[in-house]
Amino acid sequence: MKNRNTAPVGVFDSGVGGLTVVREIARQLPDENIIYFGDTARVPYGSKSQNTIIRFSEQIIRFLKTKHVKAIVIACNTASALALDAVRDEFDIPVMGVVIPGARAAVEATRNRKIGVVGTDATVQSGMYTKVIHEMASDVTVIEKACPLFVPLVEEGFKEHVVTREVIEYYLESMRNTDIDAMILGCTHYPLLRSKIRDYLGEKIQIVNPAYETAMDLKELLREQNMENGGATSEHSRYSFYVSDAAEKFRKFANTVMPFDVPTTNVVNIEEY
Amino acid sequence: MKNRNTAPVGVFDSGVGGLTVVREIARQLPDENIIYFGDTARVPYGSKSQNTIIRFSEQIIRFLKTKHVKAIVIACNTASALALDAVRDEFDIPVMGVVIPGARAAVEATRNRKIGVVGTDATVQSGMYTKVIHEMASDVTVIEKACPLFVPLVEEGFKEHVVTREVIEYYLESMRNTDIDAMILGCTHYPLLRSKIRDYLGEKIQIVNPAYETAMDLKELLREQNMENGGATSEHSRYSFYVSDAAEKFRKFANTVMPFDVPTTNVVNIEEY
Repeated sequence: MKNRNTAPVGVFDSGVGGLTVVREIARQLPDENIIYFGDTARVPYGSKSQNTIIRFSEQIIRFLKTKHVKAIVIACNTASALALDAVRDEFDIPVMGVVIPGARAAVEATRNRKIGVVGTDATVQSGMYTKVIHEMASDVTVIEKACPLFVPLVEEGFKEHVVTREVIEYYLESMRNTDIDAMILGCTHYPLLRSKIRDYLGEKIQIVNPAYETAMDLKELLREQNMENGGATSEHSRYSFYVSDAAEKFRKFANTVMPFDVPTTNVVNIEEY
Repeated sequence: MKNRNTAPVGVFDSGVGGLTVVREIARQLPDENIIYFGDTARVPYGSKSQNTIIRFSEQIIRFLKTKHVKAIVIACNTASALALDAVRDEFDIPVMGVVIPGARAAVEATRNRKIGVVGTDATVQSGMYTKVIHEMASDVTVIEKACPLFVPLVEEGFKEHVVTREVIEYYLESMRNTDIDAMILGCTHYPLLRSKIRDYLGEKIQIVNPAYETAMDLKELLREQNMENGGATSEHSRYSFYVSDAAEKFRKFANTVMPFDVPTTNVVNIEEY
């Protein structure tokens, strides 16, 4: 049996967005090996039902377990909001999501007890951010807003186009007219629009990206359970990338996001798991 | 064994878009029973690879065959372009797509032998419309353009928003500056933006919606093979609708597109087929 401490951490997302979480884990936990899975054959998750997102998440966790991962991070906000509770008790390794870390960072950031949350349709409809924030601080007012066009705009490379500014205004005008002072980017694609969102909302609203807090929580989890990789010499490949479709497209995108070279990406028929 | 003539026609699409084809078949072939499948758990297809789209199409055809369909219409342009050749010889019932009928309508419409095609990334990258048009008329110049934001704009209800006009201009400016006189709406979502596209392109370009020609071709196919339903009394339900996710959302959308009431939609775990 493999040594548990040198075993990799599994990270998954509906597609490429979770790479922003991998990037943060690699930065904060440089000794950990990571296996990433992006469900590019079935992306996006944000418009799909809870039952389907739970089934997809279960398949991915079963696949990651074949790689002997010691813990799993659900890097996708939609799957964290809709599937974490269902899968956490089902598997014998720790599974964590991005919603609780993101919520905690926002609760710590807000001064006037008003937090905004932007995310996919499914994440916002689940009300999970509001629920988790209220468990941490029942006096906080939470305003959630679905921004479903943000993901296709990022994927189609419209980051700098005038249309993106107009779509941001369309979705966030009501948010700007409130007195929230912290806003959670509750979808892993949204950090890629961060500077445009900040330009529109102004400096009075602190923008919270759950990736940073998620990596901190993972670090604490591994320490608590004595699962940290103690700086063992790195294996042949520290970071492995798997997808359910279009590996080359993913690899190219990954190389624009990650601070190291991603030489290969492997395709998995995830429906078989 | 069931009577082949009264057996239903199977129609499938990646999601809701193919309903525009069902609507046309119901209008032109009012005696035919139809079973529709929308792959709402894995929508969209337009950004995915050929292997994946073939695998999805095979699963759907296997499902439709359990319903004893006599013929299958691939209402999705992406699946027609990328999977029709692969699946046509694999199954023992006739399978037709929307690309050939759409191409023929455009070839008949053009006077100055220049045709434009708009579609998803996958459809345009396949070059299938150009290939099929050149088999029909090698002297025709074809200009293809992927418009990947059109689908999310339709799905998010942005049809009347100023952003949609700007995205149309962004994608179609180069098309307007050519002298094409016919343009194929090579994605089943695009007819829902037809009036906006026409406003932008002007009257000199005839807009071709493959749905109409597809229904005509289906009629001819059924007649040739003596499979027409001879006006037998309608069964309990003439039209049945199946999806892989989010049945109620689909049903509501279907009721806005179809000229008759869609009382129920059934969910199928398509990955099991």
